[in-house]
Amino acid sequence: MINTHHNRKSVIGITIGDPAGIGPEIVMKALLAHDLQKEANLIVFGDRIVLEQTMELIGKKGTIQEIESLEEARFEESVIHLVASQIISEPVEFGKVRALYGKAVYAYVTTAIDWALRGEIDGMATAPLQKEALQKGGCPYMDHTAILKAHTQSEVSTTLFWVDNLRIFFLTRHVPLRDVADLITAEKVHDGIVDCIRHLKQLGIKQPKLAVAALNPHGGEEGMMGDEEIQEIRPAIEKARNENLWVEGPVPADSVFHLANEGHFDGVLSLYHDQGHIAAKTLDFHRTVSFTMGLPFLRTSVDHGTAFNIAGKNLAKEISMVEAIRMAIQYSKIIRSASRHSGNPIK
Amino acid sequence: MINTHHNRKSVIGITIGDPAGIGPEIVMKALLAHDLQKEANLIVFGDRIVLEQTMELIGKKGTIQEIESLEEARFEESVIHLVASQIISEPVEFGKVRALYGKAVYAYVTTAIDWALRGEIDGMATAPLQKEALQKGGCPYMDHTAILKAHTQSEVSTTLFWVDNLRIFFLTRHVPLRDVADLITAEKVHDGIVDCIRHLKQLGIKQPKLAVAALNPHGGEEGMMGDEEIQEIRPAIEKARNENLWVEGPVPADSVFHLANEGHFDGVLSLYHDQGHIAAKTLDFHRTVSFTMGLPFLRTSVDHGTAFNIAGKNLAKEISMVEAIRMAIQYSKIIRSASRHSGNPIK
Repeated sequence: MINTHHNRKSVIGITIGDPAGIGPEIVMKALLAHDLQKEANLIVFGDRIVLEQTMELIGKKGTIQEIESLEEARFEESVIHLVASQIISEPVEFGKVRALYGKAVYAYVTTAIDWALRGEIDGMATAPLQKEALQKGGCPYMDHTAILKAHTQSEVSTTLFWVDNLRIFFLTRHVPLRDVADLITAEKVHDGIVDCIRHLKQLGIKQPKLAVAALNPHGGEEGMMGDEEIQEIRPAIEKARNENLWVEGPVPADSVFHLANEGHFDGVLSLYHDQGHIAAKTLDFHRTVSFTMGLPFLRTSVDHGTAFNIAGKNLAKEISMVEAIRMAIQYSKIIRSASRHSGNPIK
Repeated sequence: MINTHHNRKSVIGITIGDPAGIGPEIVMKALLAHDLQKEANLIVFGDRIVLEQTMELIGKKGTIQEIESLEEARFEESVIHLVASQIISEPVEFGKVRALYGKAVYAYVTTAIDWALRGEIDGMATAPLQKEALQKGGCPYMDHTAILKAHTQSEVSTTLFWVDNLRIFFLTRHVPLRDVADLITAEKVHDGIVDCIRHLKQLGIKQPKLAVAALNPHGGEEGMMGDEEIQEIRPAIEKARNENLWVEGPVPADSVFHLANEGHFDGVLSLYHDQGHIAAKTLDFHRTVSFTMGLPFLRTSVDHGTAFNIAGKNLAKEISMVEAIRMAIQYSKIIRSASRHSGNPIK
């Protein structure tokens, strides 16, 4: 099945996210106002009434073709191909947390995962979901990443932010800032380096050059302002170098992203959430795309939430969603191929 | 003395920094390759032989006029006006830490301060010094800021980073990351807010809008990832609002700089060194200018070091120095005027 499709255009799944958020709006704006279907075959996972309501909201028209399998898709550029969950059958109340909407978004995402695992889509781009609605709708997982890991039986996943020339990984993420320093151990940094370089290779970079950001101001200035660089980070880098990995650092955090964006490094391992987030989103807020790596296929996503405060008002900007879809188009095949070679459990 | 100069061009002092670093090179490139002397009268604090050696290095010619007082300056645009320390009389050995060079840079800076306190220069832009040489040269202070505070009898000073539309203040700076959270107290945040707003007013912004960055990822998500937002930052903001100050926050750190740069805030109070540094320097590494506020006059500086590894090689880029001088030209008079009104000890 997959093999016959090797030289075809990529097929990318797009989940519309929580129906009450800005997800459907940015997805439909992306599809109807940009030429994305020239570059790839796109399949939307959502519900017909939500798409119709959204087209009315944004004042654009499109033809929806509901499909149940890839074979049914006509893949005409003017047609929106929809895999419908049939969960939503009444107009959406924008900005409301509803169990029904959580149930729907869980169905969109898991259906897309099934398609990806069967090889019918090469990768997926996801619009934002609302965690509270997700829980109320009976989903046992707290967010996209948890759903993806569970449904693909992946033990770990790695988030990568991509904007301009910057590819940013994260050693720690959703922890209080006061706990970060204790989590930076030589072992963890070393494993992070190995992981980053593996993922950069999966993205097609043959000999990736990685920089590790420092934790403390000015990289600690030889222990004057923190000793994690000396005690943990440098030994980890040394070890990785002895394994013939190209790693530089610890590089002071206020230089490392600039240097990477100038092309000195292929990727940066940031040590805590805001370190990498501030860099990416200050550089270009709307074009920062999040990659979930380590699954059997690529998932990209916008890095913003459901924005309930502006949902249903035709105020949302689709730039991030367009970028997320473009990145999925560009990298899904290469990730799938790399993932297959590394023995990931794709059927 | 000052009054007769009220409508004249600004007079800005420029210190060349440690002679063995890239300071003289970026200062001379700034003066000889840019039209800065059209905008202001510039006075260099350095030594003749260093400037001559540097002109040879960069392959540019200029006429040096040594002066001992403002009256002697001809202020022709093609002339470089030099207040010489007479400490360096032999060619500089670039990239070397020398007591002599430390002694010289200390003299450049303190002489410029004397000129500023006498009202002969309106403000100053400083090229980088080398801390070890400074100490060896007998200076009892560890850096520019410490020298400036001591010699102007200022109890505190505040650093502000300016790049594009972004004005960034720092609540804490040269401390290990693991110590930051404990330093974020409601009292300190409140005092920081008051300080920032005062300085934004000094810069000519009548009703400054300030944002306070959050400490934890996503602003802590209601205490899920750290409670400093709830326990310390919000109460400080509430208190400031009750004092009729316009303050927003805590705003998640990965959004606040983007929002400020888009014009939503006039300034951002960042809570730790790298938080603000990453934002400014990832956005535009070379155009980030550091302002030292709270002195009787404005001091701007480049935000990089002496770069001994490339000193004397004609490799240094002067963009940062040009920006620092431009900012000093633009804001020195307004800061001096504001400082006089607030009763700072300017003579």
